[in-house]
Amino acid sequence: MKESIVYFVPLLGLLGLLVMFIKYQWVSKQDAGEAKMQELASYIADGAIAFLKAEWKVLSYFVVIVGLLLAYSGTLTEHSSPLIAVAFVIGAVSSAIAGYIGMKIATKANVRTTQAARTSLAKALSVSFTGGTVMGLGVAGLAVFGLGGLFIVLLKIFGVVVVDSGEMKTAIEVLTGFSLGAESIALFARVGGGIYTKAADVGADLVGKVEAGIPEDDVRNPATIADNVGDNVGDVAGMGADLFGSYVATILATIVLGQEIKAVDNFDGFSPILLPMLIAGIGIVFSIVGTWFVKVKKEMDSVQTALNLGNWTSVILTAIAAIGLAKWMLPETMSWVNPERGADFTQNGVIGAIILGLIVGMLMSIITEYYTAMGKRPVMSIVRQSSTGHATNIIGGLSVGMESTVLPIIVLAIGIYGSYELAGLYGVAIAATGMMATTAMQLAIDAFGPIADNAGGIAEMSHLPEEVRGRTDNLDAVGNTTAATGKGFAIASAALTSLALFAAFVGISGIKSIDIYKANVLAGLFIGGMIPFIFSSLAIAAVGRAAMAMVEEVRRQFREIPGIMEYKAKPEYEKCVAISTQASIKEMVAPGLIALITPVVIGFIFGPEVLGGLLAGVTVSGVLMGIFQSNAGGAWDNAKKSFEKGVDINGQTYFKGSEPHKAAVTGDTVGDPFKDTSGPSMNILIKLMSIVALIIAPHIAQPQIPEVNTETDTIEIVETPVDQAPTPEAVNAE
Amino acid sequence: MKESIVYFVPLLGLLGLLVMFIKYQWVSKQDAGEAKMQELASYIADGAIAFLKAEWKVLSYFVVIVGLLLAYSGTLTEHSSPLIAVAFVIGAVSSAIAGYIGMKIATKANVRTTQAARTSLAKALSVSFTGGTVMGLGVAGLAVFGLGGLFIVLLKIFGVVVVDSGEMKTAIEVLTGFSLGAESIALFARVGGGIYTKAADVGADLVGKVEAGIPEDDVRNPATIADNVGDNVGDVAGMGADLFGSYVATILATIVLGQEIKAVDNFDGFSPILLPMLIAGIGIVFSIVGTWFVKVKKEMDSVQTALNLGNWTSVILTAIAAIGLAKWMLPETMSWVNPERGADFTQNGVIGAIILGLIVGMLMSIITEYYTAMGKRPVMSIVRQSSTGHATNIIGGLSVGMESTVLPIIVLAIGIYGSYELAGLYGVAIAATGMMATTAMQLAIDAFGPIADNAGGIAEMSHLPEEVRGRTDNLDAVGNTTAATGKGFAIASAALTSLALFAAFVGISGIKSIDIYKANVLAGLFIGGMIPFIFSSLAIAAVGRAAMAMVEEVRRQFREIPGIMEYKAKPEYEKCVAISTQASIKEMVAPGLIALITPVVIGFIFGPEVLGGLLAGVTVSGVLMGIFQSNAGGAWDNAKKSFEKGVDINGQTYFKGSEPHKAAVTGDTVGDPFKDTSGPSMNILIKLMSIVALIIAPHIAQPQIPEVNTETDTIEIVETPVDQAPTPEAVNAE
Repeated sequence: MKESIVYFVPLLGLLGLLVMFIKYQWVSKQDAGEAKMQELASYIADGAIAFLKAEWKVLSYFVVIVGLLLAYSGTLTEHSSPLIAVAFVIGAVSSAIAGYIGMKIATKANVRTTQAARTSLAKALSVSFTGGTVMGLGVAGLAVFGLGGLFIVLLKIFGVVVVDSGEMKTAIEVLTGFSLGAESIALFARVGGGIYTKAADVGADLVGKVEAGIPEDDVRNPATIADNVGDNVGDVAGMGADLFGSYVATILATIVLGQEIKAVDNFDGFSPILLPMLIAGIGIVFSIVGTWFVKVKKEMDSVQTALNLGNWTSVILTAIAAIGLAKWMLPETMSWVNPERGADFTQNGVIGAIILGLIVGMLMSIITEYYTAMGKRPVMSIVRQSSTGHATNIIGGLSVGMESTVLPIIVLAIGIYGSYELAGLYGVAIAATGMMATTAMQLAIDAFGPIADNAGGIAEMSHLPEEVRGRTDNLDAVGNTTAATGKGFAIASAALTSLALFAAFVGISGIKSIDIYKANVLAGLFIGGMIPFIFSSLAIAAVGRAAMAMVEEVRRQFREIPGIMEYKAKPEYEKCVAISTQASIKEMVAPGLIALITPVVIGFIFGPEVLGGLLAGVTVSGVLMGIFQSNAGGAWDNAKKSFEKGVDINGQTYFKGSEPHKAAVTGDTVGDPFKDTSGPSMNILIKLMSIVALIIAPHIAQPQIPEVNTETDTIEIVETPVDQAPTPEAVNAE
Repeated sequence: MKESIVYFVPLLGLLGLLVMFIKYQWVSKQDAGEAKMQELASYIADGAIAFLKAEWKVLSYFVVIVGLLLAYSGTLTEHSSPLIAVAFVIGAVSSAIAGYIGMKIATKANVRTTQAARTSLAKALSVSFTGGTVMGLGVAGLAVFGLGGLFIVLLKIFGVVVVDSGEMKTAIEVLTGFSLGAESIALFARVGGGIYTKAADVGADLVGKVEAGIPEDDVRNPATIADNVGDNVGDVAGMGADLFGSYVATILATIVLGQEIKAVDNFDGFSPILLPMLIAGIGIVFSIVGTWFVKVKKEMDSVQTALNLGNWTSVILTAIAAIGLAKWMLPETMSWVNPERGADFTQNGVIGAIILGLIVGMLMSIITEYYTAMGKRPVMSIVRQSSTGHATNIIGGLSVGMESTVLPIIVLAIGIYGSYELAGLYGVAIAATGMMATTAMQLAIDAFGPIADNAGGIAEMSHLPEEVRGRTDNLDAVGNTTAATGKGFAIASAALTSLALFAAFVGISGIKSIDIYKANVLAGLFIGGMIPFIFSSLAIAAVGRAAMAMVEEVRRQFREIPGIMEYKAKPEYEKCVAISTQASIKEMVAPGLIALITPVVIGFIFGPEVLGGLLAGVTVSGVLMGIFQSNAGGAWDNAKKSFEKGVDINGQTYFKGSEPHKAAVTGDTVGDPFKDTSGPSMNILIKLMSIVALIIAPHIAQPQIPEVNTETDTIEIVETPVDQAPTPEAVNAE
């Protein structure tokens, strides 16, 4: 029984990849417009490929070194295998491919969206959203196919027959390598891409818009091509690798915890492990269904409504199917192999946790939208504070960003507490899986934004009629909102996933509690809390430095190449592309290594409990810094955009070019690295550090004293539900 | 024996107050200059008093309500007493008096320093530093006298004979009320004063310097008096209340833990309790000695060197005396009444912890100075990033602030771990006491800065000769550095004090561990981590809003009162003073209540362990946000100041008024609420929440199951020192 159903997982992944291929062909066949447009698009595509090649070259050294270390470490403990190195390499390569697919389709879809926008909004949305869909299906398809396929292969190789066996433990440890590969490439891609895009964006804006007074995306600006390349390598390729890593990590965390569950089912006890993979698989199917609903007919139709309709369709259908799957597969009640891991829980509890996860994700999106949307109180407060200058605009944005942590943290705390009450640690993990199930759809919605942004840039640079830019701007504005809500969603799922990984780490490392009342654990908590600060500092400082180099290069070109401003001479675009490429490759290394090395050093020197304190510190601080930075950046962005249609402050109306608008541009520029470099890296950082801890857990594990029925109070549930009779184990434990 | 030595504590406090009184008289007798200067000084003094009166009126309601609640709660449990309400009121009033003394002397010393600066730098330093000394001795004297005197009275009232008794527990619970009163007034004073001073400062700068192009402290600026009042109510009165609260909390935390120690000494076992009070007492004596060394002879002499000499004298003498006291009072080895609280420790361990505390404090000051001093790499990087505009300046400052958390956190983690290893939880507390012992000197150094700043303002407004302003600027520049290092010191001592209070809370609440592996505790950790973000958000948003109101008022006066710019009409200073006063009183309430109410709500609903998670989250996040904000603000300030003497960027020299300087002014303005409102409030926030937890601990305590020898692994020391044989209890516990 188990045998047959497990094959559905890679098959569903393959289905996603097949649909992706068809949609890719469709986009490629669309009209790419005039020669001038195609020339600009080819600059962008070439720059993006050049960056990816440079990035991959550096990362290949990293993959080889870490692969060798993993192969060696795989020979050291009982339940590990050198095959972990192979899984790691597959994960890393898959993550890179996920980014590559996204980048490739985005650089095709951008110019075709521009061309489509000459006809109608409906057509422009169709092309750009199909581009996004290709990327979403590519990422989700690869993840489900890769993870599912690898899982089957590992079951065969290690001859796994029962869930609670050493062979299964080894198989899962090897599978963790896949996730490590995916997540570490994700981190580098996100940080490198984030530095690239924002260095170019900030640099282009500072000299172009502010000093030279030419519009954004003007061909006279030497940094404009780098800016448009940046959208593709940061917002698309970086995000693709990011979500690939997140998706894999979430499913993996649920599998690892699922392996610890005793379930008397029709699947040889495999149901808690198969469930997350199958939910992810059907999530792909219903994401495809959802895409059918994303269309507008008339010019006046709301793009946001179309996206919401598609999104809700896939979320609701996936939720219903997930509940059905849980009812069909899981037994009525389940217990933990090791009773210290928690109390028994029920099928209904798991279903409750899935629903709770979806509610948490939805609330996070709504809250994020509130804090970053135009016309709402937070953005309007920044708009008003722009009237008294740059400084008050910045104070306003920082204040909004900090305030915006409150509701998400409360929602998250309730989510953690509630999903744990419903189905223990497995509940926390499956809640995250539920949230991530429609990643294909989420990513389609997310990725269409930068495609539309690029399309607008090409329209501007090609001097197409006003109405074309109007249509792409419409899409771009919606894209900004979806980008912000996507980040809220990502951080929530990352927090739950990290906690599940953290719990898995505790299980494997053999510790029974992480007691912050111990001085060394508390010291670990402090060090962990500091990591997101230094990580963010390095990332935004890198953007600042690279942007300055960009500014100086642009100023030099304006000075030394006569005729640029009169369109008589062509700027040296490639020099600006090279600055962004080199800076981002160089500067992504340090933050990446901090994330990878710190848990190893702390774990081996101070042991698993201090490492647990470190992880808790990183998770809490990382979630806070992620929300703070992403929302502050999003709010600043839309505060600036508010001036485009004119805003009333104290009875006076201000437009673009007014003093308050200039202050708002400053805020937007500060927010750029916040929302696109350091902020969204936080969710990868916290997961990656947990995965590293999980990988080294067997090597730093505390010896297990075979003791029964004493000292089992460490993972007690806090409040025993009245209607649930305690099991004999639980009674002994109290 | 105990009887006689305990009286030394209030006597040493009284000595401090006596010397303060003499110095107060000396300052009062100095020449206050011409009528014009005295008129300006009287505006400032009147504004400051008006603010304090308004603040006290609001706080008196708070004190009455909380006092009644405490009186009622004092009747509920075994070891509490309604007298806690009396102690609370005394603490609150003392804290207010500490702020009042500071404000009173500062508004006398400011104009007298201006007058002295007409003669020589030596005289100006003498007057301003003596003003600072009055405040330092006032705060420390009141704290030691109040705490020591109250302690003696409580011993009599409750008839305490032995340390390990219910009477002693009650006495200490009542004493905690004193600390609660002191620290809660400190929080309101710091936040209220911080909002006041920065609203006025930002508002005055934005219109005066940036829009109207008139210098800082120009009589034509309607907000200039409010700005100078702000220095006194924020940097002086706020800081006085703050350090009074910190000083008391630190000593109290050591007393609470000292009560749990079994010490066979010559003081009826009271030595671990008497030691922190006596160290604080002798700290006052050696602070007085240190002040003798703070003088310069010639105009060219370094003020910083003179301050360093005085500071080091008092620190080294106090350290030597503290070691002597520990050797004389403490027995060779000590153990905990409840063996779960930790292993035995030695007299040498306690001495080691005191020394470690001083080293941690010193390192924190040095690191803070590095990150905020002119000419060093961090500030220079911000200076360079000012050349590409407002946005890159802000990115640079935020990045420096985040980076500046790394070394302090590592030092702090080592301090926590090391002092715990040396003398358990008592070691952590006594390390903080050692650091705080020379508070009188620290505060004298801190408080002379705003006095010199004010003196410069009066010189400017009175159009005194250039050389007068030159002398006060010299003092003011040194004051900026000492203000920054003082904040580094304050946050380090606050972190250690919070941990000691946290440990005391764990003891009283009867929990055995705070296990973040439990979902509810982890949820508490998240909520706790978020508190410093919302607190900071409220504080800086309040500054932003009040500054905008100020800007609009100043613009209105410039518009509606003709002749201001030609010195023909006098601005309506009092309107600006009223704006700052009202805004700060109104806006200080919400952040203060969050700090006070959250632990009560979480503690009563979710119990002590979740509250423990909350406190850990607040402490870690608060320390990080405190360091980040204070250092970013300090670095921005000095980046701006760097332009006054001219800075080289890429081979070009920029001065005041250049574009890069304007960008640096933006950074400085953003940094103002960071470094003077939200940043320094963090250390009060984390301590206050721990004190509230300690107060409610008996009410939410988990019932103690009288069980011996099982489940005692929760507070194990992490590494048993090789040379220390485990006690029988410890062996059973493992």
